[in-house]
Amino acid sequence: MAQNIYDKPEFFHGYSQMRRSVHGLEGASEWPTVRALLPDLAGKRIVDFGWFSRFAMAEGAASVFGLDISEKMIARARAETTDAAITYEIADLEHLKLTEASFDFAHSSLALHYIEDFAGLVATVYRALLPGSHFVFTIEHPIFMAPTNPAWAADADGRRIWPLDRYSVEGPRTTDWLAKGVVKQHRKLGTTLNTLIAAGFTIRHVEEWSPNDRELRDNPGWAEEMDRPTFLLISVQR
Amino acid sequence: MAQNIYDKPEFFHGYSQMRRSVHGLEGASEWPTVRALLPDLAGKRIVDFGWFSRFAMAEGAASVFGLDISEKMIARARAETTDAAITYEIADLEHLKLTEASFDFAHSSLALHYIEDFAGLVATVYRALLPGSHFVFTIEHPIFMAPTNPAWAADADGRRIWPLDRYSVEGPRTTDWLAKGVVKQHRKLGTTLNTLIAAGFTIRHVEEWSPNDRELRDNPGWAEEMDRPTFLLISVQR
Repeated sequence: MAQNIYDKPEFFHGYSQMRRSVHGLEGASEWPTVRALLPDLAGKRIVDFGWFSRFAMAEGAASVFGLDISEKMIARARAETTDAAITYEIADLEHLKLTEASFDFAHSSLALHYIEDFAGLVATVYRALLPGSHFVFTIEHPIFMAPTNPAWAADADGRRIWPLDRYSVEGPRTTDWLAKGVVKQHRKLGTTLNTLIAAGFTIRHVEEWSPNDRELRDNPGWAEEMDRPTFLLISVQR
Repeated sequence: MAQNIYDKPEFFHGYSQMRRSVHGLEGASEWPTVRALLPDLAGKRIVDFGWFSRFAMAEGAASVFGLDISEKMIARARAETTDAAITYEIADLEHLKLTEASFDFAHSSLALHYIEDFAGLVATVYRALLPGSHFVFTIEHPIFMAPTNPAWAADADGRRIWPLDRYSVEGPRTTDWLAKGVVKQHRKLGTTLNTLIAAGFTIRHVEEWSPNDRELRDNPGWAEEMDRPTFLLISVQR
């Protein structure tokens, strides 16, 4: 079972204060780009690993099956949006069971890089989707996740650099982000794509998120993203 | 027109002495992985940007149309392999014309990262291929190409790091590799894939090349590739 870091009090507390937690998806820098990748959600039966329920219902979704590994995150989602068409469930994403051909769209926001058995989850999502359905998800970018020391450094000229190493060494990465000992699963970008292709999905779009000129002007701090991407956005179709 | 660095004497001299030049494709570290991505070439009409002719003919190809921007590289290829079924031609890959639906396979080895109008070339290759045909190519990996200083550095603990910056700043990169002022075109991995998808291709495999355990044992110097990839291998299908 993947580590459930969200139920660690210090992690949950820190995460809850982030802009993306206070404002939901709309508070996430990459959200406008994710949104542009979404199909029309009207009438769709949606399975979601993340915080998609409120947005999906506003877009006219028929139903949302919202899954999360964390009891606290589910409680928070419930507090934010309740609707008879939304079902929340705590789930171990490593051993997820979903009814076959029962969903028209799958979504996940920054959850799947905690999963060790990504291929197993992808196969489950593939079977749960009807033919033609999309699966749009975001994960931490492997460039962001790979390094021994994932923190900005400076070169001899004082230039900001991202000290990349171990990009091709796949497996766990333990960092102290919000809480000590957060375990993520590093995979090369190619491995993530090939896993989706092997499951039967067609790759529709791969976005290594970076801000556009307007976003950079409004959020000067996001200039870091021009040096190394934090977020990877992928859209595939069954 | 893309810079024709290969005809600069010092570049050609340096390049000619590399293992991949002395031994052809078989001398390239990534070749066994590229080879595993190839379809059966028997009877195929092939268009190639690179050094594929000798291998393709040995594999039973019907014909090879070998294109290169460099007169010296074409002369070298001609000296290595002549066959009535091989046509060599000097071509500006930025303004390439190919007969529609006239090839069963396209290949390129480490050439397309010199091309500014990648989308134009991809559209040309798409039209030149028959439906179902594959296009397999290698380019320098964008992680390798992006940095202001694309050379190994050390962190405070003396650990080897690749000083990544400007990953999301697409456009020319000028380096002094074999010759001064070599101009390459940096594109994010996502941009390369989305360009292929937009042209109509289906992504079949994306390999950020790194050595396997046996290759590492036989070539200890390749351990660098575990820290950051040099080569990107892509297979798509029309």
